[in-house]
Amino acid sequence: MKYTPLIRELLSSFQCLPGVGPKTAQRMAFYLLERGREDGKGLSKTLAAAMDRIKNCSRCRMLTESDLCSICLDATRDPKYLCVVESPADVVAIESAGGYNGKYFILMGCLSPIDGIGPEEIGVDSYKEALSEPGLSEVILATSSTVEGDTTAYFLSDIAVSVHKKVTRIAHGIPIGGELEQIDARTLHRAITNRTKVYE
Amino acid sequence: MKYTPLIRELLSSFQCLPGVGPKTAQRMAFYLLERGREDGKGLSKTLAAAMDRIKNCSRCRMLTESDLCSICLDATRDPKYLCVVESPADVVAIESAGGYNGKYFILMGCLSPIDGIGPEEIGVDSYKEALSEPGLSEVILATSSTVEGDTTAYFLSDIAVSVHKKVTRIAHGIPIGGELEQIDARTLHRAITNRTKVYE
Repeated sequence: MKYTPLIRELLSSFQCLPGVGPKTAQRMAFYLLERGREDGKGLSKTLAAAMDRIKNCSRCRMLTESDLCSICLDATRDPKYLCVVESPADVVAIESAGGYNGKYFILMGCLSPIDGIGPEEIGVDSYKEALSEPGLSEVILATSSTVEGDTTAYFLSDIAVSVHKKVTRIAHGIPIGGELEQIDARTLHRAITNRTKVYE
Repeated sequence: MKYTPLIRELLSSFQCLPGVGPKTAQRMAFYLLERGREDGKGLSKTLAAAMDRIKNCSRCRMLTESDLCSICLDATRDPKYLCVVESPADVVAIESAGGYNGKYFILMGCLSPIDGIGPEEIGVDSYKEALSEPGLSEVILATSSTVEGDTTAYFLSDIAVSVHKKVTRIAHGIPIGGELEQIDARTLHRAITNRTKVYE
């Protein structure tokens, strides 16, 4: 089936979105063209504005339209804690979980020499600045528990230790509600090694 | 988690796409903002152009940038056959399957009084015009085998019969490669009723 040039271009543009292949792209394009012209125009406009105006918070690197993001501007957040995460989506997840009221630092990735992501790309200079902020006493490393995430955590931990901050890593273990027999061996191994004290 | 107004708008715009909920919208938005600014700008531009310039073929209602679509313009297509389908995606599917070289007519939906889709919305006037084209002898009704699809097929069949055209419906039965015991009862019932002659 030969599409017209513009339809072909639209299909390939949709495929730049994560998780969208040729079939989904076709479904999206046809849906908008058949029944959602106004929605399509709206998406196009919002997308252009967002790509143009949303940038990174100058302190924590969160996505925002202003110079500082709403969390950095929020005076009720506890400056004692700095939670280091890989992406804005991680901030959203931790915020919805509740229970954390400190500040954040977003790496926008993690160290991966093979993809050309070094200390500069994860914003090591801004990280050092964040470490020097008054009142900070604990750095919580919340990168993923992959090889890259662990490497990044070690790297950032070294820097924090060199300026005499307490450093912690988020707990890894059995997910709440998880059944032991369903858990993979590495997680189970980690859960036993990192067992927490109940009574002594 | 409170998003900035523009991020919130972007998330809700992405949710106008079929199959995209809040989680997928967030994944798409963050992906483009973190790593795909150029792709995002490109998508925005193509989308605006497509919403503006792609319209329906004046003969068969297929999506196209020109007045007539490439199939209607193609002199090698057999004018004897007119295949009536619900959507442009159906045309794409039939064309990729191969084996059909006639013309098409696209209803852009099917009769559904409850959704306000009547004869006018499925383009009954253009359908009548298509029926009066020279050389046409057979109308193949390829609407879905749902209540609405069947109703639409009956309705269109009546019109075609009134102008003395041969009318056929695409075959319904066991899919190729399908195992009998896996097939639902209604399909199996239809497959037995519509059995085809092998030897007599």
